[in-house]
Amino acid sequence: MRVALGVEYDGSRFCGWQSQPSGCAVQDVLARAVAAIAGHPVKLVAAGRTDAGVHALAQVVHFDTDSLRPDTAWVRGVNALLPASVAVRWARPVEAGFHARFSARSRRYRYLLLNRPTRPGLLAGRVGWYHAVLDVAAMVEAAQCLLGEQDFSAFRAAECQARSPVRTLTRLDIHKAGDLVVFDFAANAFLHHMVRNMVGCLVYVGAGKQPPAWLRQVLAGRDRRQAAPTFAPDGLYFAGAEYDAQWALPLACDPSPIALAMES
Amino acid sequence: MRVALGVEYDGSRFCGWQSQPSGCAVQDVLARAVAAIAGHPVKLVAAGRTDAGVHALAQVVHFDTDSLRPDTAWVRGVNALLPASVAVRWARPVEAGFHARFSARSRRYRYLLLNRPTRPGLLAGRVGWYHAVLDVAAMVEAAQCLLGEQDFSAFRAAECQARSPVRTLTRLDIHKAGDLVVFDFAANAFLHHMVRNMVGCLVYVGAGKQPPAWLRQVLAGRDRRQAAPTFAPDGLYFAGAEYDAQWALPLACDPSPIALAMES
Repeated sequence: MRVALGVEYDGSRFCGWQSQPSGCAVQDVLARAVAAIAGHPVKLVAAGRTDAGVHALAQVVHFDTDSLRPDTAWVRGVNALLPASVAVRWARPVEAGFHARFSARSRRYRYLLLNRPTRPGLLAGRVGWYHAVLDVAAMVEAAQCLLGEQDFSAFRAAECQARSPVRTLTRLDIHKAGDLVVFDFAANAFLHHMVRNMVGCLVYVGAGKQPPAWLRQVLAGRDRRQAAPTFAPDGLYFAGAEYDAQWALPLACDPSPIALAMES
Repeated sequence: MRVALGVEYDGSRFCGWQSQPSGCAVQDVLARAVAAIAGHPVKLVAAGRTDAGVHALAQVVHFDTDSLRPDTAWVRGVNALLPASVAVRWARPVEAGFHARFSARSRRYRYLLLNRPTRPGLLAGRVGWYHAVLDVAAMVEAAQCLLGEQDFSAFRAAECQARSPVRTLTRLDIHKAGDLVVFDFAANAFLHHMVRNMVGCLVYVGAGKQPPAWLRQVLAGRDRRQAAPTFAPDGLYFAGAEYDAQWALPLACDPSPIALAMES
């Protein structure tokens, strides 16, 4: 039997999703907890393999087991064995053809950037930071050229293992929310460091280091060295994966807000 | 010379505001950093002495020094010496008569309660949690009786050192924001554990364990043993202190939102 889980985590406590010999990865702690409930070792597959320091609002994971357990055991039982910074939100048996990574039609990421003179304290590890006032309108203007099917070689980490640099970016929204600049990305899939590299370039534009039209040149150049430095992982959230309705999963990202509203 | 600071912190990393022999308090790390910039030991006084695990959006602190430093040294210089989870937002010289604690006319607290079946993961340590659906309208109804000048003995910790149990509660707003229930409190001052005890009772009402009218009985009884258990510190934020305009402080809590908006 194949089981799908919806999982959230605070990535600042882990060395990324992907299992490591030291056991410091989200996959390591989750696999140990699921194995304890299943009564046998499990192999976990995730929709998005987040880097060290990157968080998840709605990661989707699957594993195979012959152990029959109520869904609540895969949620409450597993949660009882996990560190406080990881939680299973839901569990559901799925058909054998479902694959958390390969069945995902699209992924979403959110980036939270604190834009104020002083560095974060309360939100340390939860947000990126830029000290000078950013021109959000210029960033929005620049962002438009990235939409659609494109060769994203300019925003791809050297160690990226994807076969093709072509991806289809379907959403790149940027808005201000108090001291935060919120970036919302959606694509069929993302290259390694692609979101953080796009955020780095957009911050260059917002800070006036480059005009909006520069981003089109960077994209066309397909050369990582022409782009801005990779932005910090701290503000990056894997916000959900979308699957065909046939798999009958819960909405990967709950449409109701998880809003940590701290406004006065 | 007296200097006032605006400070924010993630209280989950500390054993509270108040200095401890082990040095685990916010006051300890902040006093060390300020002393390094001042070149002499300093004594810090805070508007609100938050408990272990309680956060601050806008703590106000003062200290005395004869060392002349630009305001930026008290902000950027001190921040460079602080742990990532504490940050100075602003610094300002104030008249000798100013006192962060005794000059404060009122204080504000915010409580964030995650209301969903599964425990927090991403927001562990940042929110309180209640698993069953809460009736927010019943909580709002019950809360009204707490407003105004009242004897809050029923909501006062046994170890509270205040001379009088009488406080004037000027605001108790409750609203839903996605999966969160957000409580906003303002009063001239608060007794020890007063907010967390009020939240505990309001959750009893929201969960249907008691009717809204029960809260008036608890208040009138002035007996801590009739009230609900103290709620977790995790969701509590010191949100600001108000001072007379003569002190010319920055707005203690920025009216623009620090909104960690994670809605999809």
